[in-house]
Amino acid sequence: MRPVQAVVDKSLAADIRPGAAVRLTGVWHSSSSSSKPPPSVESQGGKLARSSVAGQPNSSDVHEQEAAVHSAGADQGLAPTTAELRVSEVEILGSSDPQTYPIQNKYQTPESLRAISHLRPRTPINSTLLRLRSDAMALLSQFFFQERFQQTHPPIITSSDCEGAGEAFTVKSGGTTEFFRDPKYLTVSSQLHLEALAQALGNVWTLSPTFRAEQSDTSRHLSEFYMLEAEMSFVQDMDEVMDLAQRMLASLASGLKRLSAAQELEKHRLDSRDPAERLAFEDLVDPKELQQRWRGLTSPKRWPRVTYTEAIEILQPVAHMFEHKPVWGSGLQSEHEKYLAEKIGYDEETDAFLPIFVTQYPQEIKAFYMLQSESPPPQGQTVDCFDLLVPNLGELAGGSMREHRLAQLEDNLRLHGLEVPTQRKARSNDMGWYLDLRRWGCPPHGGFGLGFDRLLSYLTGVPNVRDVVPFPRHFERCDC
Amino acid sequence: MRPVQAVVDKSLAADIRPGAAVRLTGVWHSSSSSSKPPPSVESQGGKLARSSVAGQPNSSDVHEQEAAVHSAGADQGLAPTTAELRVSEVEILGSSDPQTYPIQNKYQTPESLRAISHLRPRTPINSTLLRLRSDAMALLSQFFFQERFQQTHPPIITSSDCEGAGEAFTVKSGGTTEFFRDPKYLTVSSQLHLEALAQALGNVWTLSPTFRAEQSDTSRHLSEFYMLEAEMSFVQDMDEVMDLAQRMLASLASGLKRLSAAQELEKHRLDSRDPAERLAFEDLVDPKELQQRWRGLTSPKRWPRVTYTEAIEILQPVAHMFEHKPVWGSGLQSEHEKYLAEKIGYDEETDAFLPIFVTQYPQEIKAFYMLQSESPPPQGQTVDCFDLLVPNLGELAGGSMREHRLAQLEDNLRLHGLEVPTQRKARSNDMGWYLDLRRWGCPPHGGFGLGFDRLLSYLTGVPNVRDVVPFPRHFERCDC
Repeated sequence: MRPVQAVVDKSLAADIRPGAAVRLTGVWHSSSSSSKPPPSVESQGGKLARSSVAGQPNSSDVHEQEAAVHSAGADQGLAPTTAELRVSEVEILGSSDPQTYPIQNKYQTPESLRAISHLRPRTPINSTLLRLRSDAMALLSQFFFQERFQQTHPPIITSSDCEGAGEAFTVKSGGTTEFFRDPKYLTVSSQLHLEALAQALGNVWTLSPTFRAEQSDTSRHLSEFYMLEAEMSFVQDMDEVMDLAQRMLASLASGLKRLSAAQELEKHRLDSRDPAERLAFEDLVDPKELQQRWRGLTSPKRWPRVTYTEAIEILQPVAHMFEHKPVWGSGLQSEHEKYLAEKIGYDEETDAFLPIFVTQYPQEIKAFYMLQSESPPPQGQTVDCFDLLVPNLGELAGGSMREHRLAQLEDNLRLHGLEVPTQRKARSNDMGWYLDLRRWGCPPHGGFGLGFDRLLSYLTGVPNVRDVVPFPRHFERCDC
Repeated sequence: MRPVQAVVDKSLAADIRPGAAVRLTGVWHSSSSSSKPPPSVESQGGKLARSSVAGQPNSSDVHEQEAAVHSAGADQGLAPTTAELRVSEVEILGSSDPQTYPIQNKYQTPESLRAISHLRPRTPINSTLLRLRSDAMALLSQFFFQERFQQTHPPIITSSDCEGAGEAFTVKSGGTTEFFRDPKYLTVSSQLHLEALAQALGNVWTLSPTFRAEQSDTSRHLSEFYMLEAEMSFVQDMDEVMDLAQRMLASLASGLKRLSAAQELEKHRLDSRDPAERLAFEDLVDPKELQQRWRGLTSPKRWPRVTYTEAIEILQPVAHMFEHKPVWGSGLQSEHEKYLAEKIGYDEETDAFLPIFVTQYPQEIKAFYMLQSESPPPQGQTVDCFDLLVPNLGELAGGSMREHRLAQLEDNLRLHGLEVPTQRKARSNDMGWYLDLRRWGCPPHGGFGLGFDRLLSYLTGVPNVRDVVPFPRHFERCDC
């Protein structure tokens, strides 16, 4: 993320323009602090070409530096770099017309950068966000490998719509007849297929694209997003599933702290002297709150677990604070979730926000596949499920134990007003195959799904999920 | 993959039926070779419940074993196991009706198992294939992390159809108007988007679902498949791209050899005495040929690289062997590719099949974005591209240098009869954004795409790609 300082003789510097891709050959010199720009740089009309280096020097004797010059800023305000490249040779690999280059040498709003998503990752912050995304994928892969979870590729084109809730996209081919005989959809959740795989492979996970045709225009929703889903087999106690979620997130956050992208985001925010960049950092969540989030994620303390019924009891005395009244039997509103996360999750001792688990919601407001709780409260029947809540964002993940007994699952379908497929239709375009999983040896099992983009937004303090994915897709927007 | 031998007293064994999920508690005993089944097992009507263990014992003092009993076979022919579990307690976690359980206690054809894709992974071979798939994902993630490539999530819903070739699926929402304003498609290749990301992040890669609405009913095609794509920035020599492809595949194959799934597939094939399983192994490629493949993939030798023009010269003297005449200017047919792979790739010294690179194809039969060769042969203009060919399967991967100069790319579009978008339309539903990448600092770059399912098919010797994915989708088939 940091710029590289290159000292280039005037005679060589003419074609180094903002946006250009150049190869600079030279020798690294450690430079002492100097606020006076070297003469060769002054020759560019008072501008210093700051290179967003596409390849990092991998040893101290690097003598060739390839870079795409993605932005140029006035030098006077920049922090001294610890090394500079004294350039003896310049090769322009890809020229650039600075008059038309859309990434201007000044602050640009996130909204305006979204209109040029094919160029947006060239800005230092956006580039670093995508590198952090990459680091997160590598760390999750390592985590689950060590935990002996099998990574799987559940299908993207599916017959069913997981919870009957999401509006699914339809998949069509150019032909006159249905390509797959029946109408097919883009997956809204991999859970049902993961359950099939967990029966065979033991614990499984996936990080897969997921789709919802919702027209909601919020900072938390995308039409195409990545879900991290895990399913544990032979598990009877939901605490084990919540333990996994905490262990995974703690491992991820600790791992990220050791890698460069997260480190750079944190440090560079403090030492950047480029006014445009400082303004861009202002768009992110306050650094103090960000640190509270990270301390909570990596805390050795067990994250708080309260039941939905307890949560309602916490909310009711402060009902006046909310637009919606907290009532047992209704879903928690976003305002309720945020209050709970801040109230219950804040750990004074370490000044940290611990994510909180809210468990055992009323059966009627949750999905049909969830297992009934053994000891429901007097208010009504609940299911063994949990939502993982964090301040500001609300729900980060949701999970449950799954009803693994055939008769009870069929009852649940009826209770939710859904059709109970017969065994004869098992392979047709309905849920027969999912019931099949209960017919022959279904152990108790459970799992969770976590919005990966939302998690990255929480980790980086980027307020809008559209800015942590390379090419955001949402209602009326699908550029490139 | 191997069965676990459990000795269960008659009084406890009544409900242990094929397909059931059970928890067995007991003590491990090392058992000496014995072809005589223990009395407790005889009590199940001469059948031994062989457990496909869902969790592996992780130390020698494991005393609790959870398993899904997915198949039962006559014991008499089984190899002695090295340890057996003397069971003191049996808990049926999920019962099973053996009368209706679709996975029969005999050989079932791959085709018949495909009709029950939600249960298929319960068979030992299919389970092991999916574990190998998982191992491969973890190893690739590690490889690219070490090579400092950034893993990316290019979009699945896109505006463009990569090569104008593939028939793309259309994405629709339930509403009356277009959800994204313009018609959108499921991606047929992530390459163009990877190029945008490579400009910003340096070297990038992805393992993403990819879609083609082709009606071809072959053992090598799926409508939904996974492509491993890598794009290298600041690369001027295509040899570097081919070096990466070889290094990656060698690293993957070496890594797999150290992990259990690949080891089990190889060993169990030799020592399985279960007649049904031996027949299932017969469906795979001959073990000798499989070893030749693996020796080639992990060979320290540089894989052969021949130009298309040289390939035609090799093919022409043996033209009588082919249905299609090898002619300069026409594409290589599958029969040509297989001949070349076997002829050029076979390394006598090590009895190995080295994959081969065929490079510099005629420009007219390749995609518009490929870079013209600097020294084309007298026969006509060629481009800097390569196909990676292996015996039996043909093309495993394809790559190229990309035309990084704007004017030449526009010429290429015209040459291929494609519309050249103007800059004004850059953000609309055409290729304007892709041309934009050449306007402002486009370094020389190149990359490749590899069919991940096809690779797994090559590695495991499974003849049909439909059997290395959990839920295959192809023309008229999209079960579950």
